Amino acid sequence: MSGHVIALSGGVGGAKLAHGLYLALGAGELTVIANTGDDFRHLGLHVSPDIDSIVYALAELSDPVRGWGRRDETWNFMEALCGLGGETWFALGDGDLAMHVERSRRLASGETLSGVTGAICGALGIHASILPMSEDAVRTRLRTDEGWLEFQDYFVRRRCEPEVREYAFEGAMQARMQPQALAALERADLRAVIVCPSNPFLSIDPILAVPGMRDAIVRCAAPVIAVTPLIGGRALKGPAAKIMQELGFEVGAGAVARHYADLIDLFVYDESDAPPTRAADVPVAAAHTLMNCTADRVNLARRLLALADERPTVHTP
Amino acid sequence: MSGHVIALSGGVGGAKLAHGLYLALGAGELTVIANTGDDFRHLGLHVSPDIDSIVYALAELSDPVRGWGRRDETWNFMEALCGLGGETWFALGDGDLAMHVERSRRLASGETLSGVTGAICGALGIHASILPMSEDAVRTRLRTDEGWLEFQDYFVRRRCEPEVREYAFEGAMQARMQPQALAALERADLRAVIVCPSNPFLSIDPILAVPGMRDAIVRCAAPVIAVTPLIGGRALKGPAAKIMQELGFEVGAGAVARHYADLIDLFVYDESDAPPTRAADVPVAAAHTLMNCTADRVNLARRLLALADERPTVHTP
Repeated sequence: MSGHVIALSGGVGGAKLAHGLYLALGAGELTVIANTGDDFRHLGLHVSPDIDSIVYALAELSDPVRGWGRRDETWNFMEALCGLGGETWFALGDGDLAMHVERSRRLASGETLSGVTGAICGALGIHASILPMSEDAVRTRLRTDEGWLEFQDYFVRRRCEPEVREYAFEGAMQARMQPQALAALERADLRAVIVCPSNPFLSIDPILAVPGMRDAIVRCAAPVIAVTPLIGGRALKGPAAKIMQELGFEVGAGAVARHYADLIDLFVYDESDAPPTRAADVPVAAAHTLMNCTADRVNLARRLLALADERPTVHTP
Repeated sequence: MSGHVIALSGGVGGAKLAHGLYLALGAGELTVIANTGDDFRHLGLHVSPDIDSIVYALAELSDPVRGWGRRDETWNFMEALCGLGGETWFALGDGDLAMHVERSRRLASGETLSGVTGAICGALGIHASILPMSEDAVRTRLRTDEGWLEFQDYFVRRRCEPEVREYAFEGAMQARMQPQALAALERADLRAVIVCPSNPFLSIDPILAVPGMRDAIVRCAAPVIAVTPLIGGRALKGPAAKIMQELGFEVGAGAVARHYADLIDLFVYDESDAPPTRAADVPVAAAHTLMNCTADRVNLARRLLALADERPTVHTP
């Protein structure tokens, strides 16, 4: 079966599955809608961490060990910046810096974030559409036991240590959905919408917070399938499990399924886990969700496409 | 003898002598007034090539082979930028980039160029004052056989190939002299003002074009000594000789001496040359001006300080 596929993705974990889908599909069949709630200005540069993770994954430029940034990276800039007395809490590799400088230059000259991303994808030979959820600024902030923190302050500077009590997506109410993202969700040939194994609260919720996004997903012509970011009750990377606990959720795939209950048609849990109990009325299926190599990514993508092609539920708008 | 010394400097050649003076003098005894006519915005960053050359020279971070930029440099940023379809005609090393990013960030937050430079010098442990000639933008432009060119377009992109017919310092008439530079020139304990072996037309003239600069130098309490940028009628680096020829000057140290005649008290030519003829009425002295190593730099600095301490002429304001 063919048709267009949309992935909703945050950073590293989501980007791996986006890469698998990219390899499993034909050229031009994938649109990735990326979280931009983590975007921030640093050293005067516009940094879009999740878009970058997705671009690097699809261009096969990701560092396989660190899990973020570019492979074969060097750190001369940071070393020199440290010598000049600059701010060094956020690590920017020498090659990675090209992305932030080029993006900032293009944005300053009046291009949109999607225009910049499209141009960069074109230069890197990526035959997929990577779109920010909105051209407008949405900024994830967290209320913690240390007060309100900007996302990167929490995530990088404070290494997710503060206890999260609440989170908010500043600017989301005023943000307009990226028009090509809306158009992609309205396609008649839509085959699947995949909610990638990203942090449901900090990576996927900001996307869903853009007015119109949730409705467009629920109304779309294809099955909506979410992949668990938790295996054995733990997140592979990042603070998803810690935050669930702090926010009073039961920590596990079932709670994630319930979190997505009014959005999705199928929830995919990891085959090493028992089927999630109390997953609301959401149908579930098992898959090998751990992605340690490219083959894992492609296999998971193929499994998800096969599940979508079975059209798991009567999709009720 | 002690006292304060001021150096007027452009990029590489001037920076070498500034380094020699820095090593020959005590901490805090040197002020370098730097040309900022070569400054430009590139990739959205504020680049000050001459200030950087001086900072790197004094911090002993200069690349000894290329003659510009930082030693032990890597080029991952440029490589990645090329891959993203960015502009790559102006080479920015990974370590060097820290300077431009940090400067741009500080300028954008409202700091002055001298404030930024002072902070960077402080972080690098430089005990000298490196000052832009003005906080205001002055931009060197050249009228060539290909029309008017921005300095870096001429110097880097077109590799000094176009024939120069005229040059101008845009913004110079409105620029205000950097206040600490003026104060340094007015010091009662001023020991010497050294015009470094930089391009007289493109590196020193922009400094002199700032209203008040020339007067302040002529009025100052110390001898003003210029060092030839030409040896055997050739510039060691850069287009000085080519430009002199194109502008109809006789190419040689004598013509440089005449160019500076109403400013200086002594002109220093290279010991391998014959004493310049037709050097107007400017007294001349010979020195080993070739600076192939740190010892050369220090020895030339000491020779210049000795010449200054002899107070070569009755300085007539």
